[in-house]
Amino acid sequence: MDTFELGRIHPTAVVSAGAQVGQDVTIGAFSLVHPGVEVGDAAVIGSHCVLGEPTADLYATAGATTPPRPCHIGEASVVRSHTVVYAGVTTGAGLQTGHRVTIREGSEIGEGVRIGTLCDLQGDLRIGDHVRLHSNVHVAQHSIIEDFAWLYPQVVLTNDPHPPSDTCLRGVTVRRFAVISVGVVLLPGITVGEHALVGANSLVTADVPARMVALGSPARITGRVEDVSCRHGALEQVYPWPVQFRRGYPEGVLPDASDISGP
Amino acid sequence: MDTFELGRIHPTAVVSAGAQVGQDVTIGAFSLVHPGVEVGDAAVIGSHCVLGEPTADLYATAGATTPPRPCHIGEASVVRSHTVVYAGVTTGAGLQTGHRVTIREGSEIGEGVRIGTLCDLQGDLRIGDHVRLHSNVHVAQHSIIEDFAWLYPQVVLTNDPHPPSDTCLRGVTVRRFAVISVGVVLLPGITVGEHALVGANSLVTADVPARMVALGSPARITGRVEDVSCRHGALEQVYPWPVQFRRGYPEGVLPDASDISGP
Amino acid sequence: MDTFELGRIHPTAVVSAGAQVGQDVTIGAFSLVHPGVEVGDAAVIGSHCVLGEPTADLYATAGATTPPRPCHIGEASVVRSHTVVYAGVTTGAGLQTGHRVTIREGSEIGEGVRIGTLCDLQGDLRIGDHVRLHSNVHVAQHSIIEDFAWLYPQVVLTNDPHPPSDTCLRGVTVRRFAVISVGVVLLPGITVGEHALVGANSLVTADVPARMVALGSPARITGRVEDVSCRHGALEQVYPWPVQFRRGYPEGVLPDASDISGP
Repeated sequence: MDTFELGRIHPTAVVSAGAQVGQDVTIGAFSLVHPGVEVGDAAVIGSHCVLGEPTADLYATAGATTPPRPCHIGEASVVRSHTVVYAGVTTGAGLQTGHRVTIREGSEIGEGVRIGTLCDLQGDLRIGDHVRLHSNVHVAQHSIIEDFAWLYPQVVLTNDPHPPSDTCLRGVTVRRFAVISVGVVLLPGITVGEHALVGANSLVTADVPARMVALGSPARITGRVEDVSCRHGALEQVYPWPVQFRRGYPEGVLPDASDISGP
Repeated sequence: MDTFELGRIHPTAVVSAGAQVGQDVTIGAFSLVHPGVEVGDAAVIGSHCVLGEPTADLYATAGATTPPRPCHIGEASVVRSHTVVYAGVTTGAGLQTGHRVTIREGSEIGEGVRIGTLCDLQGDLRIGDHVRLHSNVHVAQHSIIEDFAWLYPQVVLTNDPHPPSDTCLRGVTVRRFAVISVGVVLLPGITVGEHALVGANSLVTADVPARMVALGSPARITGRVEDVSCRHGALEQVYPWPVQFRRGYPEGVLPDASDISGP
Repeated sequence: MDTFELGRIHPTAVVSAGAQVGQDVTIGAFSLVHPGVEVGDAAVIGSHCVLGEPTADLYATAGATTPPRPCHIGEASVVRSHTVVYAGVTTGAGLQTGHRVTIREGSEIGEGVRIGTLCDLQGDLRIGDHVRLHSNVHVAQHSIIEDFAWLYPQVVLTNDPHPPSDTCLRGVTVRRFAVISVGVVLLPGITVGEHALVGANSLVTADVPARMVALGSPARITGRVEDVSCRHGALEQVYPWPVQFRRGYPEGVLPDASDISGP
């Protein structure tokens, strides 16, 4: 038996008759596609994935009769192996995931988003277009991540100011083009402004204004992003990052460097 | 082929004739149940799981003849997809796991416990009743987590004071109702007292007394839990947390608020 | 159907005719072995694994005709369940992995290496012989980890000094016998010297010289490894660690204690 063929559903995959699979879709070995799932044209679903995972109320109500919320995977997406996408998730065209990603119900995800290996999206959250989550990012419920933001490995977005509680949950907002470096924890209700930068391993306990750099535990504002210099002298200006980095974005979606380079 | 039906073993699952499966058990697609496993009545095992994973000595001894240690999954549990539970694990009734949890041999787990996505339980450890581990908690061997404790994402319990070594391993003890916030590392041998609270991203290098708050790297005692105030003014008292949070526990298991609210 | 038998390919596994499987190899249930993979003699591949995962260019070029890069798993290895090894990876004899490990293309891995559960190796990296990665270690592209190094849970090796960029990537180098404790982040281009020790939760922003201890955020040099004392009085000397720890290494590969114990 072949292990993989583009544009084909592997014979070991189990695809519900109640799922809608577009043209030229690939579904890998040992993947499971539940009823109510729509997979857009030319999407590639890796092996050992689950699309349309039932939400917890299924077990609580002993399989009661409400149909599952729909799960829509955008066209031309690549969903890598062992990923679980719940019922009640919508993703735009061109999603790319790493391996073993979890996306829970109530997640709305824009176009051209990349979500790295082991990321854990807890649901009831919004992610804009062209966002990049590197490996193992934890995104709590009620988070908002706007277009073009970057979140690096092991970043955690929280939502509970005095856990456990449920009266005071506040999500984190990461604005357009903001960069959250590796290992950062963002406390509940924090907003990180447009084009802002948070340094590695920081604990962010207060809002970070647009175009500012924050660093430390607790994080302090250390300057403007325009003043970050290249450690190796290779770049004249580093931030806002689209002045020097444009790889992997569709033609025309990033702003011109001159429009964002700053004062 | 159906993708899932409550109370049924999916036709693609591989269940050993040497396993005991209770009444009304669900086993998902592509799951593997080894000999020696007992699954309690009405348990739901997700897809792509492994129950009764062989311990390392199997490979060291080239498949020698000792039977596997038993693996017991309590009744009415929900074990989500891609989870691996080793031979030599016992879990109480009503376990709920997220996805891709690992529970190694020698783990004894009480009733009503929840273990989040990506948690990694290294075995030879004890977890009491109604404990909550959020996502991606790492629990070293020799850890003890008592009833009603909460551990948040990316918490790490260690056991080796000068790694690598094997003469001086000491587990961490988290006492009843204690709360360990996101990203905390607990050094070997530490005890966190009953109803204590450790703040986000702390490195805990000394014991935390009962009902105290610890914070920072290294963590310092900053006050009593009764004095933590609600950031949003919505709650009169926040800790000990059962004074304001009771969702998800069976009737009658939590103490009355008046019995724990403190001096 | 049996769930597992040493030396056998499980009937549910899908193994390409274009893969080469050695003598006495075990392949677990629901595993997928792509064309171009070579599995060495007596290797044990767990269930739900993927060997020879296609690299991203496959999707970009719509299945173009270049054959996949080879993927070689060394003899007598144990690769545990849900692990993904890409095309373009070479591992030496005696590799042992935990569960859900990811090893991407361009990784060259020596003999006798252990890689814990959830580790994420981003590819284009080199790992020497007898290296130990504990759980959930993130290794960026261009990293070099030399023989006998130890990396503990949730360590992150980075490579981008001002993310996102691609002109200035610099990998981290961890030299022979170095120990990186739990939760440490190593910034791009850092070298941690031979026999050095980095304490828990540190952020390493400058090189750590051989046989020195570094600690904190940012990490400071706090002394010589020979001067670290055993917290429990059980060991006369703790570091360099081979003076007191030798479990799990083949006969003769570790240096004599007297040759490394220091001045």
